[in-house]
Amino acid sequence: MFLRVINPNTTAAMTAKIEESARAVAGPGTRLDAVNPSMGPASIESHYDEALSVPGILTEIARGETEGVDAYVIACFGDPGLDAARELARGPVVGIAEAAMHAAALLGRGFSVVTTLDRTRGRAHELATRYGSPCRGVHACDIPVLELDKDPDVLDRVVALGRTALHDDDSDVLVLGCAGMADLAEKVSAALGVPVVDGVAAATLFAQSLVTLGLRTSARSEYAQPPPKAYTGILRRFTV
Amino acid sequence: MFLRVINPNTTAAMTAKIEESARAVAGPGTRLDAVNPSMGPASIESHYDEALSVPGILTEIARGETEGVDAYVIACFGDPGLDAARELARGPVVGIAEAAMHAAALLGRGFSVVTTLDRTRGRAHELATRYGSPCRGVHACDIPVLELDKDPDVLDRVVALGRTALHDDDSDVLVLGCAGMADLAEKVSAALGVPVVDGVAAATLFAQSLVTLGLRTSARSEYAQPPPKAYTGILRRFTV
Amino acid sequence: MFLRVINPNTTAAMTAKIEESARAVAGPGTRLDAVNPSMGPASIESHYDEALSVPGILTEIARGETEGVDAYVIACFGDPGLDAARELARGPVVGIAEAAMHAAALLGRGFSVVTTLDRTRGRAHELATRYGSPCRGVHACDIPVLELDKDPDVLDRVVALGRTALHDDDSDVLVLGCAGMADLAEKVSAALGVPVVDGVAAATLFAQSLVTLGLRTSARSEYAQPPPKAYTGILRRFTV
Amino acid sequence: MFLRVINPNTTAAMTAKIEESARAVAGPGTRLDAVNPSMGPASIESHYDEALSVPGILTEIARGETEGVDAYVIACFGDPGLDAARELARGPVVGIAEAAMHAAALLGRGFSVVTTLDRTRGRAHELATRYGSPCRGVHACDIPVLELDKDPDVLDRVVALGRTALHDDDSDVLVLGCAGMADLAEKVSAALGVPVVDGVAAATLFAQSLVTLGLRTSARSEYAQPPPKAYTGILRRFTV
Amino acid sequence: MFLRVINPNTTAAMTAKIEESARAVAGPGTRLDAVNPSMGPASIESHYDEALSVPGILTEIARGETEGVDAYVIACFGDPGLDAARELARGPVVGIAEAAMHAAALLGRGFSVVTTLDRTRGRAHELATRYGSPCRGVHACDIPVLELDKDPDVLDRVVALGRTALHDDDSDVLVLGCAGMADLAEKVSAALGVPVVDGVAAATLFAQSLVTLGLRTSARSEYAQPPPKAYTGILRRFTV
Amino acid sequence: MFLRVINPNTTAAMTAKIEESARAVAGPGTRLDAVNPSMGPASIESHYDEALSVPGILTEIARGETEGVDAYVIACFGDPGLDAARELARGPVVGIAEAAMHAAALLGRGFSVVTTLDRTRGRAHELATRYGSPCRGVHACDIPVLELDKDPDVLDRVVALGRTALHDDDSDVLVLGCAGMADLAEKVSAALGVPVVDGVAAATLFAQSLVTLGLRTSARSEYAQPPPKAYTGILRRFTV
Repeated sequence: MFLRVINPNTTAAMTAKIEESARAVAGPGTRLDAVNPSMGPASIESHYDEALSVPGILTEIARGETEGVDAYVIACFGDPGLDAARELARGPVVGIAEAAMHAAALLGRGFSVVTTLDRTRGRAHELATRYGSPCRGVHACDIPVLELDKDPDVLDRVVALGRTALHDDDSDVLVLGCAGMADLAEKVSAALGVPVVDGVAAATLFAQSLVTLGLRTSARSEYAQPPPKAYTGILRRFTV
Repeated sequence: MFLRVINPNTTAAMTAKIEESARAVAGPGTRLDAVNPSMGPASIESHYDEALSVPGILTEIARGETEGVDAYVIACFGDPGLDAARELARGPVVGIAEAAMHAAALLGRGFSVVTTLDRTRGRAHELATRYGSPCRGVHACDIPVLELDKDPDVLDRVVALGRTALHDDDSDVLVLGCAGMADLAEKVSAALGVPVVDGVAAATLFAQSLVTLGLRTSARSEYAQPPPKAYTGILRRFTV
Repeated sequence: MFLRVINPNTTAAMTAKIEESARAVAGPGTRLDAVNPSMGPASIESHYDEALSVPGILTEIARGETEGVDAYVIACFGDPGLDAARELARGPVVGIAEAAMHAAALLGRGFSVVTTLDRTRGRAHELATRYGSPCRGVHACDIPVLELDKDPDVLDRVVALGRTALHDDDSDVLVLGCAGMADLAEKVSAALGVPVVDGVAAATLFAQSLVTLGLRTSARSEYAQPPPKAYTGILRRFTV
Repeated sequence: MFLRVINPNTTAAMTAKIEESARAVAGPGTRLDAVNPSMGPASIESHYDEALSVPGILTEIARGETEGVDAYVIACFGDPGLDAARELARGPVVGIAEAAMHAAALLGRGFSVVTTLDRTRGRAHELATRYGSPCRGVHACDIPVLELDKDPDVLDRVVALGRTALHDDDSDVLVLGCAGMADLAEKVSAALGVPVVDGVAAATLFAQSLVTLGLRTSARSEYAQPPPKAYTGILRRFTV
Repeated sequence: MFLRVINPNTTAAMTAKIEESARAVAGPGTRLDAVNPSMGPASIESHYDEALSVPGILTEIARGETEGVDAYVIACFGDPGLDAARELARGPVVGIAEAAMHAAALLGRGFSVVTTLDRTRGRAHELATRYGSPCRGVHACDIPVLELDKDPDVLDRVVALGRTALHDDDSDVLVLGCAGMADLAEKVSAALGVPVVDGVAAATLFAQSLVTLGLRTSARSEYAQPPPKAYTGILRRFTV
Repeated sequence: MFLRVINPNTTAAMTAKIEESARAVAGPGTRLDAVNPSMGPASIESHYDEALSVPGILTEIARGETEGVDAYVIACFGDPGLDAARELARGPVVGIAEAAMHAAALLGRGFSVVTTLDRTRGRAHELATRYGSPCRGVHACDIPVLELDKDPDVLDRVVALGRTALHDDDSDVLVLGCAGMADLAEKVSAALGVPVVDGVAAATLFAQSLVTLGLRTSARSEYAQPPPKAYTGILRRFTV
């Protein structure tokens, strides 16, 4: 089985960290790599960034299809390009927000999300609504994505924010709202005594599970391959 | 007041038709033009097409901001790139699906959408949920977007489909689910005796109304201008 | 085009203020007047007041139909009598709560309402649910409707309440929850830096827009003219 | 205990039938009468009718308060004036739609409503949403309210419609959607083998139960007595 | 009419208290007793307790069916075994949570629940969702069920918690979230000035009302008698 | 890692089939067995059966805790006893309905469930609501659980029913609504060309994934170990 984790931003250091998190949980029979597009934003912290990451994500999916990838993980908590990626890929595609939210739903009555910038909270709520998830609050630590690795106080701030979130939202599970937090899950859980879900690891195992189950995105109507047509100045995979 | 209607696909004939529909309702004091990106798909009939239309839409918003545009309409029924466009533009941005759905809510208890391809129905339902709209069904006439102008039976097929939709969904209003149907509203309404909403005209007047009201997208948090950062190989407006 | 704004209470000073707000935004080609019933409560601050305002509203609609009115605005934030008015009028009827809520939905992720008395908050929430609007809270300044013009601290109190509302509800847009606050929108917006929606102006433009679009309430079933029958001691328009 | 059932229309024959249905279930210690306003529509088959019935209902409530009535039933399936009546009355007020829907929820997974005219269906759905009730469909027999007593085929038509409703909606309970159908419940139930709820009887027992429980409408905020003010040309109970 | 109230735990003192509360409201023509199973937990304060109370409840229902019981009340706020009991009993079965929540919905805009242990709050929310009830919060006084009778401060603590709940949740009605609080309703209501609903009394009257109305659980499909089959080591009523 | 799949009924042949389905997907490093209680119903086809299966399930969990089981699957589509089991087990517990529904949500826009008896459909809908899942319909093939292995037409009937379900519900994914159908997934998928989810296999992999992720049910409040107390005549694990 060949899994590919796509980091939708262009920051290679973050790709490496994501790959580490995914590899730590993938089964022994699973080949796994993590990639990032060469085109797009250095980090994703707005709808604008998210929108501009999608062509790069789709390029990576298109490439993966030629390389025999069996399933993909999109490793940004906004689940950018997920619907389009599902049309493009033969195998399943799992977003880290959806994976984390579905996993959290198996572990308690309700969860809180701890994320980076305040402005990204609306998108997290929107996804929770789409996925039918018992999300009770989204809390921002106000650390930009690319500072997560540099700020020595990140763990303390996330733990403190998580504690507040559990109390204020009356939640029993935490979800980390950024792929760049993947390395914090275990430590935050130890500090707070509740399950803490990292979407990168969760999505990796859910993607692996779907492949093992022989399941892939339905091609019955909405997610069938896009109809061929002319594309100008952009990805042309389906051009007539 | 300067309004710009963006046709997210690259088909100039469709842009012209959209401009005509928008101009027919804009007030005498309103300067209005319609544009389409030079980059992107010839029509939008999948999540993939929609995703690939967004960079072009954002390019047009960025250009409009330098030209003094006061408000924008995004003239594709999937409302592609709406959130990102709102971050980018100083003035309001209105999608034709949201405009049509809000207008329809003022006219009856529930509405049905008549659209092009079956595969686009999921997105229309998703938008209705997001907008809190009383959408009771989405029905496809199975005519591709770029055939709408060529197929001599389009009106008959849309009328027949609309009649079925009103009955099956118990709706009292119809919404046309494609910018390429803008010219059909009046005729379908005459044939079926119910209000028929064309999103292009509705969005034009709602955008004009918001400008008259002095209202623009809130910049309090989520829709503030995106934080500056490096963008590789794609729009760079906010690059540091 | 002939628009009529109905102030559902009997206080002429408030009617005048409402007319001013509506006229300020109506297009040059629009004839507009504001009226109030001769029958009913001096202000609307309870379900009881609202119920007793409806016969007066319907009387004004009935009169307007004989005078060639093209569309109506009902200028009370409880949207009293809206369904009945839609059955009676040939043209569209727009409530100021629904207009404000639909407009606010175009401007941000979620809005808060600032209203007069605490007891009116339940109705505002109920309307937000009906309209599918992203209302995150309704806050009362505890100033009776007819004191809004007399209390010199109204602006300060509404600004302070609005600031609290934005923070507590995590909203990015404010909606003014009373027609008597129509003159405050611009100043509150300037003070708080977010869009502030006055329903009177919004409803005026939405009504004008619907007329321009050639759209009126569906008469397919629910909102058709009421069946004729005997009415005793009250409006008899449809009496057999 | 003194219960009063208010038939909101002016048709005395229907009041008599409603009284009979209510009396059949009221306990031996309960004094019960049924009244109708002298003002208003002969039957209620539109939002317009409903709106015009409310002043009469409130007049009856005001009169009842002077006569020592302990609780009221509003015997029209649109639950007209319910909120206003709750502000006015010291004791509880129960609508027949809410009573029927709450009762039905105790008897099965989901119910269907069988009502009179097609145009009243929207209101029934709206009430089911407000009450959080598992209503799966509303079906019209197309018999006007005042024909229910005259049409010899009423029972057969309601039974046939109920059968269709149970099947199409996959319901296990029926609710009769008009006070004028109160006498049909037992026969329809016998014919279809499912529980059939008449709101008049259900509301009578729920009102009686609330009085026995010592419960009345909360006067904490929204449903407190209306603030006194001037009322012109209409009920003046709270006039200053 | 013969009503039976089942206390699902094995504590006879609590059964006696419940019987007192039920008898105080049952009509003169109603024979009523309260029972508890000989098998099960001493009190119900977890999902585990609730699950283990169900066989005992069903045993009591089975016994009641042989004794001519017309309707049952299940007197634990988690409404344990309600669906199964409905399959088993010929007459209606009413849970105290559902009765209290439906009653509360007739008395105000929204209610808060005051309950025992924090851990039971999730179940109360789940039931409110199932019943479509306007529950705005569930608050725990942290007094174990079997301490309710022993702790001299119970009333003060419930009053204080109720006051907080009304304010924080903006509710106008309180619901007591434990059968063991049945004796507090009147005093808490007197202290707080809002309606306070005890589910035991409410369910008793609703069950009595359903019998008077001739209504019983629908046996159309889901709640029909269970299909006969082999049961090993547990209740065998339907064993082939 | 040690996983245990609990078949909640007492039919050993079905346990064997479930074990086969689970083993086929479990990873090489996973020890897995399937068990069934010695107490309870031979199959689960009613709320009554479900309720009576729970003590047996909990007995198996209690035993598993002494044997070092890391995670459990409850292999009945009603997810019986899931909340109680989560309180009892140290590791995660996954129901096959929740697993199937979460998996299906990753594969398309909406799914239909194909199940055994008509009367079980209500429970499936209730679970879909609880899990926030995009379930569009539940369809019964009217084959009792224990006939699934004996009826030679099962596959044909399930395929035919699935085809109807996909069309009528406009779904793109199927979910098998009974553990006894676990062996049909691949064949039904081949016949219909859509993903078909067997909950037994899905739950096995989700449980395995949660263990790999180091995640277990939150013990913060609701799902903590039950408070110790007296249990009479039934499981006593937590007895004081």
